[in-house]
Amino acid sequence: MSEFYDALETRAVDEREQEQLTALKSQLQHAKTNAPAYAESLAAFDPADLKSLADLSRYPVTRKSELITRQAGMRPFGGLTAVPEGQLKYIFSSPGPIYEPQSMRPDYWRFARTLYAAGFRKEDLVHNCFSYHLTPAGAMAESGAHALGCAVIPAGVGQTELQVQTIHDLKATAYIGTPSFLKIILEKAEELGVDISCLNKALVSGEAFPPSTRAFLLERGIKAMQCYGTADLGLIAYESSGDSGLIVDEGVYLEIVRPGTGDVLPDGEVGEIVITTFNPDYPLIRFATGDLSAVMEAQSPCGRTNKCIKGWMGRADQTAKVRGMFIHPEQVDKVIKRHPEIQKARLVIEWLDESDQMTLHCETAEVSEALKQAVEVSLRDLCKIRGGVVLVQPGSLANDGVVISDQRVYT
Amino acid sequence: MSEFYDALETRAVDEREQEQLTALKSQLQHAKTNAPAYAESLAAFDPADLKSLADLSRYPVTRKSELITRQAGMRPFGGLTAVPEGQLKYIFSSPGPIYEPQSMRPDYWRFARTLYAAGFRKEDLVHNCFSYHLTPAGAMAESGAHALGCAVIPAGVGQTELQVQTIHDLKATAYIGTPSFLKIILEKAEELGVDISCLNKALVSGEAFPPSTRAFLLERGIKAMQCYGTADLGLIAYESSGDSGLIVDEGVYLEIVRPGTGDVLPDGEVGEIVITTFNPDYPLIRFATGDLSAVMEAQSPCGRTNKCIKGWMGRADQTAKVRGMFIHPEQVDKVIKRHPEIQKARLVIEWLDESDQMTLHCETAEVSEALKQAVEVSLRDLCKIRGGVVLVQPGSLANDGVVISDQRVYT
Repeated sequence: MSEFYDALETRAVDEREQEQLTALKSQLQHAKTNAPAYAESLAAFDPADLKSLADLSRYPVTRKSELITRQAGMRPFGGLTAVPEGQLKYIFSSPGPIYEPQSMRPDYWRFARTLYAAGFRKEDLVHNCFSYHLTPAGAMAESGAHALGCAVIPAGVGQTELQVQTIHDLKATAYIGTPSFLKIILEKAEELGVDISCLNKALVSGEAFPPSTRAFLLERGIKAMQCYGTADLGLIAYESSGDSGLIVDEGVYLEIVRPGTGDVLPDGEVGEIVITTFNPDYPLIRFATGDLSAVMEAQSPCGRTNKCIKGWMGRADQTAKVRGMFIHPEQVDKVIKRHPEIQKARLVIEWLDESDQMTLHCETAEVSEALKQAVEVSLRDLCKIRGGVVLVQPGSLANDGVVISDQRVYT
Repeated sequence: MSEFYDALETRAVDEREQEQLTALKSQLQHAKTNAPAYAESLAAFDPADLKSLADLSRYPVTRKSELITRQAGMRPFGGLTAVPEGQLKYIFSSPGPIYEPQSMRPDYWRFARTLYAAGFRKEDLVHNCFSYHLTPAGAMAESGAHALGCAVIPAGVGQTELQVQTIHDLKATAYIGTPSFLKIILEKAEELGVDISCLNKALVSGEAFPPSTRAFLLERGIKAMQCYGTADLGLIAYESSGDSGLIVDEGVYLEIVRPGTGDVLPDGEVGEIVITTFNPDYPLIRFATGDLSAVMEAQSPCGRTNKCIKGWMGRADQTAKVRGMFIHPEQVDKVIKRHPEIQKARLVIEWLDESDQMTLHCETAEVSEALKQAVEVSLRDLCKIRGGVVLVQPGSLANDGVVISDQRVYT
């Protein structure tokens, strides 16, 4: 049996680029034609003009944070879907509320690929500890397992002793869920003296997967791989070996942008994950996830040729309230754009002398008092609040995707 | 659109009998050939000998209470299934533990029929409040809804405010779950002032559905029908109009037996529901559910021609512990069988003079001191405990399926 789920994973890089360019043009046209919200927002764009994948950066971004108001304005999906409601299998409800569709399409969330890379095969009996209630997590994982032909125990969360007994009795071989709950199950089994060494593989997600937990699982014979995905998009990136980042899924096109903008960052820079999905039913275009990551320079040594990302590195949504006013990363970006001399900036907010103070740290090769004063004016204009400006040499600011750094400590 | 799910529901009674006889012979042979436990227990039976449905009463009963030990002896399903494990979609875990399979077969649990009778159609958006975790209840209901083409909100239990908001936002039209939880959701919506009048139909199950709750729902524009099923068998019987009992599902053959025996009772008598399913994957033969009901004399006025039962009337499992010894309904039955003069009996257990006392009340047309003394001897022999005997005229004992009546009150 192949170690790859399909031939897409090992395509030559330029072959993938060509095929994704074709798919992207067709997906953009499909979204314009069949999703009312995109008919409007993409009215001025002709997908036929797309000459390269990079040209996508001219298209507008759809922010996850917008979904709440878009959906409230047009139930259930804000006009962003292109599937008749009569062809839906599920509608899920996430905090916000944000509602997510799942159509009848098999492996709708594309989780079969990450499960295959984690070693899941038809013979595995899968113990799925993601919740099935309101959230799509349980269904996301199990539709992938069913696509591989696995039987699933829909275990959900809680009831740890019952989980242990069920795994033991049924000889489940594979776990899906958060890494911390798997650790809890294993510790409970040890406490009860129940043998669940039948478990030998796992797909974990939904939270950080620290090396200490990975080692804890390996000591107990469980090889665990993680993946990253969202309730809107399904799978975005997945592990194949556990030490070379997460490989981007073949069903999406990924960009890393400066948080609060649509501006693509060079590989290596930490920024917000923006995804264009090839899912025809819910064709999200340049969907800003609110999550931070960075593209890695090297390909995975496993033979899969798609780009790798570092995995989840925090939230990009850095909106802060300063002296009663909201400051959004978009406003900081406008300040930068007004001064082409600035390459990168970070707004630091502190609590000093019993009040909020903010300072914009700007990387520039042209340090001058004139520029400093000009930026101070722009900052006040665009953020409605007075703040200090510090000019620093390029490369001085941390590469962590943080545009607004809230460092207030109230003592 | 037809008011019936399919033509099976309105078959002439003798047509159903002929078709079920053919199906039954084939199912018995299938179980013998492909389910190891039935290869053994049915070794002495030739299904070709079956001349009428009534002949099934000669076959051995498989008790729900046996499943725990059968499954522990041969994981996962005690040799009672006839589907390769590689073709399973789910394995569920119920208290016991008892494990239940669901194969890839669409509408495996046959819930589409009861949903259709409750008015569910393709256009409905179904809010499913049965749990999806470990228990099959959620999957039982939703596989039926999906067979009808409905989209499902997999809502599960708890989180009442979120349930209210989701129903309101998505305009769910149909509820599935327990009647009491629907009442809680409606009361919460009224308390919050949220309009969920979009809900207009419901399928309820899992607990009693008292007329007061039915009226409460009707006052709020929700027409609710109930059904009866089990985690092993799926649908057993369903309502079509709310006032003529539950119609037996077309996918099963139902008998009502004296609890603890395989002896079929005449229509009208309360006894244990015993089901032979036509499901080829898990071909349970004469499966004693442990639940009590009775066959009703009249057909449903809705036009469906299958037998009607009264719905769930309690548990048949009446095992009691008397002076430290277990007494099972099977033992009471052995006493009755030893004395052909006895038509029916009930063992009454009381706490009198600071100790357990038991008395066997027997219906017989031949009341005599000799019979009374003989039955006393049998009772001591077969139950290992001395008890009194009272002989009464036929028709004196209540028609409630109770074989062991535990009336102990400790004061």
